[in-house]
Amino acid sequence: MNQYISGGLNEECGVLGVFGVENARDLMYYGLHALQHRGQEGSGMVTGSQDRSMNRVKGMGLVTEVLNSENMKSLLGDMAVGHVHYSVGEESGIENVQPFLFHHHSGDFAICHNGSLVNSNELKRYLEDQGSIFQSTSDGEVLAHLIKKEDPTKIDVTVILQALNKLEGAFAFLIMTRDKLYCCRDKYGLRPLSIGTIDGGYVVSSETCVFEVTGAKFLRDIKPGEVVVIDDSGLKSFDYSMFKHHYMCAMEYIYFSRPDSDIEGCNVHTFRKETGKLLYKKVPVREADIVIGVPDSSLSAAMGYAEASGIPYEMGLIKSRYIGRTFIQPSQELREKGVRMKLSAVSSIVKGKKVVLIDDSIIRGTTSKRIVELLREAGATEIHVRIACPEMTHPCFYGVDTSSAEELISRHHREDEVCRIIGADSLAFLPLEALYKAARRSELCTACFSGDYPTQLYSSIDI
Amino acid sequence: MNQYISGGLNEECGVLGVFGVENARDLMYYGLHALQHRGQEGSGMVTGSQDRSMNRVKGMGLVTEVLNSENMKSLLGDMAVGHVHYSVGEESGIENVQPFLFHHHSGDFAICHNGSLVNSNELKRYLEDQGSIFQSTSDGEVLAHLIKKEDPTKIDVTVILQALNKLEGAFAFLIMTRDKLYCCRDKYGLRPLSIGTIDGGYVVSSETCVFEVTGAKFLRDIKPGEVVVIDDSGLKSFDYSMFKHHYMCAMEYIYFSRPDSDIEGCNVHTFRKETGKLLYKKVPVREADIVIGVPDSSLSAAMGYAEASGIPYEMGLIKSRYIGRTFIQPSQELREKGVRMKLSAVSSIVKGKKVVLIDDSIIRGTTSKRIVELLREAGATEIHVRIACPEMTHPCFYGVDTSSAEELISRHHREDEVCRIIGADSLAFLPLEALYKAARRSELCTACFSGDYPTQLYSSIDI
Amino acid sequence: MNQYISGGLNEECGVLGVFGVENARDLMYYGLHALQHRGQEGSGMVTGSQDRSMNRVKGMGLVTEVLNSENMKSLLGDMAVGHVHYSVGEESGIENVQPFLFHHHSGDFAICHNGSLVNSNELKRYLEDQGSIFQSTSDGEVLAHLIKKEDPTKIDVTVILQALNKLEGAFAFLIMTRDKLYCCRDKYGLRPLSIGTIDGGYVVSSETCVFEVTGAKFLRDIKPGEVVVIDDSGLKSFDYSMFKHHYMCAMEYIYFSRPDSDIEGCNVHTFRKETGKLLYKKVPVREADIVIGVPDSSLSAAMGYAEASGIPYEMGLIKSRYIGRTFIQPSQELREKGVRMKLSAVSSIVKGKKVVLIDDSIIRGTTSKRIVELLREAGATEIHVRIACPEMTHPCFYGVDTSSAEELISRHHREDEVCRIIGADSLAFLPLEALYKAARRSELCTACFSGDYPTQLYSSIDI
Amino acid sequence: MNQYISGGLNEECGVLGVFGVENARDLMYYGLHALQHRGQEGSGMVTGSQDRSMNRVKGMGLVTEVLNSENMKSLLGDMAVGHVHYSVGEESGIENVQPFLFHHHSGDFAICHNGSLVNSNELKRYLEDQGSIFQSTSDGEVLAHLIKKEDPTKIDVTVILQALNKLEGAFAFLIMTRDKLYCCRDKYGLRPLSIGTIDGGYVVSSETCVFEVTGAKFLRDIKPGEVVVIDDSGLKSFDYSMFKHHYMCAMEYIYFSRPDSDIEGCNVHTFRKETGKLLYKKVPVREADIVIGVPDSSLSAAMGYAEASGIPYEMGLIKSRYIGRTFIQPSQELREKGVRMKLSAVSSIVKGKKVVLIDDSIIRGTTSKRIVELLREAGATEIHVRIACPEMTHPCFYGVDTSSAEELISRHHREDEVCRIIGADSLAFLPLEALYKAARRSELCTACFSGDYPTQLYSSIDI
Repeated sequence: MNQYISGGLNEECGVLGVFGVENARDLMYYGLHALQHRGQEGSGMVTGSQDRSMNRVKGMGLVTEVLNSENMKSLLGDMAVGHVHYSVGEESGIENVQPFLFHHHSGDFAICHNGSLVNSNELKRYLEDQGSIFQSTSDGEVLAHLIKKEDPTKIDVTVILQALNKLEGAFAFLIMTRDKLYCCRDKYGLRPLSIGTIDGGYVVSSETCVFEVTGAKFLRDIKPGEVVVIDDSGLKSFDYSMFKHHYMCAMEYIYFSRPDSDIEGCNVHTFRKETGKLLYKKVPVREADIVIGVPDSSLSAAMGYAEASGIPYEMGLIKSRYIGRTFIQPSQELREKGVRMKLSAVSSIVKGKKVVLIDDSIIRGTTSKRIVELLREAGATEIHVRIACPEMTHPCFYGVDTSSAEELISRHHREDEVCRIIGADSLAFLPLEALYKAARRSELCTACFSGDYPTQLYSSIDI
Repeated sequence: MNQYISGGLNEECGVLGVFGVENARDLMYYGLHALQHRGQEGSGMVTGSQDRSMNRVKGMGLVTEVLNSENMKSLLGDMAVGHVHYSVGEESGIENVQPFLFHHHSGDFAICHNGSLVNSNELKRYLEDQGSIFQSTSDGEVLAHLIKKEDPTKIDVTVILQALNKLEGAFAFLIMTRDKLYCCRDKYGLRPLSIGTIDGGYVVSSETCVFEVTGAKFLRDIKPGEVVVIDDSGLKSFDYSMFKHHYMCAMEYIYFSRPDSDIEGCNVHTFRKETGKLLYKKVPVREADIVIGVPDSSLSAAMGYAEASGIPYEMGLIKSRYIGRTFIQPSQELREKGVRMKLSAVSSIVKGKKVVLIDDSIIRGTTSKRIVELLREAGATEIHVRIACPEMTHPCFYGVDTSSAEELISRHHREDEVCRIIGADSLAFLPLEALYKAARRSELCTACFSGDYPTQLYSSIDI
Repeated sequence: MNQYISGGLNEECGVLGVFGVENARDLMYYGLHALQHRGQEGSGMVTGSQDRSMNRVKGMGLVTEVLNSENMKSLLGDMAVGHVHYSVGEESGIENVQPFLFHHHSGDFAICHNGSLVNSNELKRYLEDQGSIFQSTSDGEVLAHLIKKEDPTKIDVTVILQALNKLEGAFAFLIMTRDKLYCCRDKYGLRPLSIGTIDGGYVVSSETCVFEVTGAKFLRDIKPGEVVVIDDSGLKSFDYSMFKHHYMCAMEYIYFSRPDSDIEGCNVHTFRKETGKLLYKKVPVREADIVIGVPDSSLSAAMGYAEASGIPYEMGLIKSRYIGRTFIQPSQELREKGVRMKLSAVSSIVKGKKVVLIDDSIIRGTTSKRIVELLREAGATEIHVRIACPEMTHPCFYGVDTSSAEELISRHHREDEVCRIIGADSLAFLPLEALYKAARRSELCTACFSGDYPTQLYSSIDI
Repeated sequence: MNQYISGGLNEECGVLGVFGVENARDLMYYGLHALQHRGQEGSGMVTGSQDRSMNRVKGMGLVTEVLNSENMKSLLGDMAVGHVHYSVGEESGIENVQPFLFHHHSGDFAICHNGSLVNSNELKRYLEDQGSIFQSTSDGEVLAHLIKKEDPTKIDVTVILQALNKLEGAFAFLIMTRDKLYCCRDKYGLRPLSIGTIDGGYVVSSETCVFEVTGAKFLRDIKPGEVVVIDDSGLKSFDYSMFKHHYMCAMEYIYFSRPDSDIEGCNVHTFRKETGKLLYKKVPVREADIVIGVPDSSLSAAMGYAEASGIPYEMGLIKSRYIGRTFIQPSQELREKGVRMKLSAVSSIVKGKKVVLIDDSIIRGTTSKRIVELLREAGATEIHVRIACPEMTHPCFYGVDTSSAEELISRHHREDEVCRIIGADSLAFLPLEALYKAARRSELCTACFSGDYPTQLYSSIDI
């Protein structure tokens, strides 16, 4: 547990909603599949329509494991919300897999979300003191209770705006009622949420790659603090807050999103390639034979570094494609004998070479150390590590599982010490300002690098 | 939906609790397995102990499908509650599988139950109007909310007694907190619940067969309206109601329970055999060659009829043992060609014979009609049907899925008409008073035969 | 391994064939399901027709686990052979699951069988010395090689008759070629095989219960030493041997077959009931309160004993219906604490009673000992064991896994010693001649009781 | 079926053997996993040792699906052979999944292989005419029968050399006996096979990437026509043929192998990158904005083209990582609506760009057409396709499933026609001689491009 606040779960997930598309389940299936990289531990979907009750299928596992032709038959209707779930440690369990489906005499409703509230513990306590009980550790239940506290007799945009005002933290919420889809984004703009259109209906997604994959057309990003209400009359926009900043999470660019997604108009691959170029510009390696990236998320940055430096870009590390949930991890004994797990180095490529190794981040340093060892064993003569983000010194409370502050290597060690610990010949990080440049933005959430948290941390909100 | 009241779900399930037995999960596994006949659609278990948080495993399917060596590793502690689940129609889904596990700052708690409340809709509406939201259609959630409404800051026996007082209907509730197990039975005594002891600890079960199977010793039945609190200091008894009747459900004797269970001191097989004897005494078949029962639940009654009449008891119908969830039902075309499903008749035994066919009940008449046809095709010359219970004319609101009133064949047809419809040569039902005699009791719930419902049906309770 | 001969595998299995019925797979599915009691470890089916090649699905597990709507789509054609498989010890494995499907330029063919050859080792060695290689330990492969040794260019009835003449032992073989189904029974008549008709086509089965379940009409049993060839022109009969005895396996009546099957015109339930009556007649218990049988195979005999004696027949033992392959067996520790596995005694029924316990056989005595203990713990005051077959003193080499000679308790102990070992108050076995009487036959294979093996045991056949 | 010869199955698979390594199964598990790209439809392993019999586990599916901690317990011993299986069309089935395990009184043996014989039909016919029967369509069974035909009493290197001399075609065979591992490569050197050493024992693999992953050290490639015998005394080398050429399959470099494998000393990624450079040198695109490759196998070539041309290398196509066997393919209707399957284009990257698209090959042209369409829809203004291999005009008979000759688009259409069919702005193929240059070899099998088959095609070998 982190030392700063009574934070909730640290999760990174993906949400998806569909409105007004016949057999919404089909679009959801392919869309959730395109978001799978955001969460592989659970998946689920609720569908409905104005003239029928909501149905749900959810379970532990990948979209293709949870959903099948048989159980999707029950998922009728032209509206849907769905979720891919990533969970940390002990909190894993079917009760935390979303969407949540709530039954109420005033109408059923379904909720799913991405992100993390910083005042969830306070909100839960407040609600519990009034008789609420919780069946999961998820923020989705908190919002549902807040909504019903506002007005037990109905759900409308007024009620939702009031409930959202009690939330402090990072979120993208989708709320589906009998005839409406509410799409809500936190006022800081920490978590992404975008709208597309298809077949006269709408798709709302954590990432724009879903539009490309499903054939939808991108309409626009939902704004920080905005609630977009979709119903038969089209889109309506409301603001639950007048806050005027936009601290998009930098890690979405750096690590989480698919390279074919655009975040606030900036393509993720392009961002990453740009950080690679900036790495070369700011912290070049004097002399090197090849540039290699750690697959998959660091390949774009490695391409950028290679392009900027003119040093050949090579495939020096291979990542196994077939590691699924049933993979038997090699025992300590086997690992000591040299059995590789996910990554292996290509000795024919790196042997005798001075290597520039591009990685997207260093968290605890153990993976970096292991990769450097792999490359040394494969015969690399020099290994110069360049990290396509700044030193990570602070924990995230907004849904990114960056591990506890205690474990962050750069919190306790200077760059040269980290270099020694991971065994590299040189090490440099991307300067903070380069992130803004690559994202072409003046505002970002870079709290994990700087400690400048855009939200309150100790909750004292007046509920 | 039935026409009488705003009834909840009609379900028959089984509950099981363990207190003070090391690795409670092991006992639970074999105990739940022994209750499997009460519900095959879902199973689950929550374990805990005073010094550790609660863990849960639940899922769709049989006990042996849901629980395995791997996932049971997390089920630590010397306390547990568990459930086997049967669900009707569309209400099936993981969210209705019990136990429920509720998180609360004043302490987590788990609930599971058997039975059905008749005022669940009214209670839900009342609770929802104060901000409660429900994630399932199960009465277990209702009780949890009522408990927390009474006092959000703690759970103790006072709070539970007050909450139970708001319930109208049939139930056996198990509530597990950090250090206590509350075992609650409705004031009418409609649903069974018994306590046994083992290894210095306790086992609480819907049926006593669990004691036999797990090696526990039967202590006593929980009384109607009683709450037994089990903690480190032993058992304490409380009454939540002063109501002084005991309308045990007759269908538990007739159909639901395992023949090796005792209900209120009366063995189920012995009861059934007695009804068979009484059938012969009250409505004998003048002349017959053999007596056969419909497997499995009517075999005891058939033995009784044979013993009383001196007519040989034979195995004229065979039930397949291997029909599981993956069995492909024969198509209409194959059924017309003669492909049998679950039951087949033994022509070598019934050919040329005058048969007394004992069945435990007739609901819609379709199964009886089919069995009579099977026996005719197999060569039986006469088929005299004797039913080991009275004519079923009223729906059950207490947890037995007797189908809707509209479908009950005896609601709309006299005995002779039913006889004609099912194609039998004669038909007779057990007289109502014989049930009391066989159960050796003066009070039973026989509402489905008589319409005399022991509880209020329209809810107007003052909450 | 047994000490007498170079025996093959000891297996009891079931075979099924269909000829000339559209979508033969459907009939096969329900028919194999009805034979499931003969083997639960593997299942498989090959289908074909004159104008298409053969297809196969096979796997470990029950029919309903191996076959599903999806994989049965490939099983086209109006002919089929199938198998349910039981295997012993280490010999289990997908390679031993039948049917075997052999590819050959002169035409593919499929083979499945029930029974066991006594000269399989000699035949294999003979064939291997000529270049044959074997991929399983099954006799089916041996026959295939012998057939091809006779004439590599074709399969016809002459070739098959010659090959069968080399076999010594017990078998029912089904051989399917492009347009014919060959149904072969050993010359001793040790293993059963019967023909029925349906929809103008034919069904061939190890047991007649399949006909009842599938709606087929029983035609006749295949005779010892007979090969029935089924093709478009109907049935043709051939004899591969002039041997003139018929030693039907007594254990088929006593233990293996479903009670609704008829063996050589004698219903199995009726046979068993008769043995119960004869037990009373020959070795009565002087004074007893109740008769109980060990479920499921001893219930018929118990009914017979009760009917003959006038002592009430009761349900004193309960067998769990839900024990499947994923059931976690209780640890030794739990068993010592009293956790029951498959069987539990009903104390309400047996407490204070003098019990006649009917069982179908005693092999090693361990199960009998356990059951007697269960009944004692449940309060039975006297337990008189009556076994519905003679003392088993010799191993079976014909496909019944009666364990090795060394382990047979009656091989080493007199009746009174066995009684003491199993802890009963009295014990008696059915006299040998009573089996013939109950089966209404003058010839049976009773080698396991008498040591009179109908076949040669040391192979010295002239090949 | 192809029109030229009586070819066997067209399969591409992977083989792996281990000798003298304790718990060989563990190494096999990770090694087979590293070969998974060569076959995803089935997997299997046989283990053994001098003092114990062989055990096998095999099944349909990925290594991680077929093998688990439970079933691997039986896989004892320090020797093993294993296989990953790819199968074409109807030939799929558990009977074709390797290794084959043959039982014989002179000793059991196991066989697995990669490649395809051109005279398998002739050999089978010859063997069948002498009584052999086949249970699969695999060449492994053919070799087993040939070996036993040579000498039914034993297996030694002489027997194996003689048997191999009857084979015509492409193969890498592993044969495991009680104490020896025989590693055999066809005399043309068409299929790869390499030896490494680990822990004093040996690993033999279709690809060298296994050594990197398991921590083994590469020793050498097995030579064309060589049989390496591994036993307790080490390695011994034999030649079954004096043929003096080495026609390594060009498609192994181009398509099949993992980029981190070395083929005959040439790294696969490096080869592919070189073909990309040669594409630029030989058939450059005059003016372009970006270079993109079709993931995953064409990425190396695209890097090479980008490096040689100085045009930026971009990630213009994304391949889904989570498509497994349970993925529901989108319906035709959904595809028409724009739902993508495996590949999607990144419009932010390709919009408004002149694109050089590098692919590794064009077989039927349908995939290329689809990719060009994807890029056009994503906004590419020009699409210049460059193929990193020559025009494929002839079928492969050596184990590569290049589809039938009829379907090869370049067999029937000139380059300019293909360009029009796939909708590209320009199209060019790599010249044949460039392959030799990139592989730094004077001999390759390039039959699929040239029709120069190194082996006989019509079999008339003297057996």
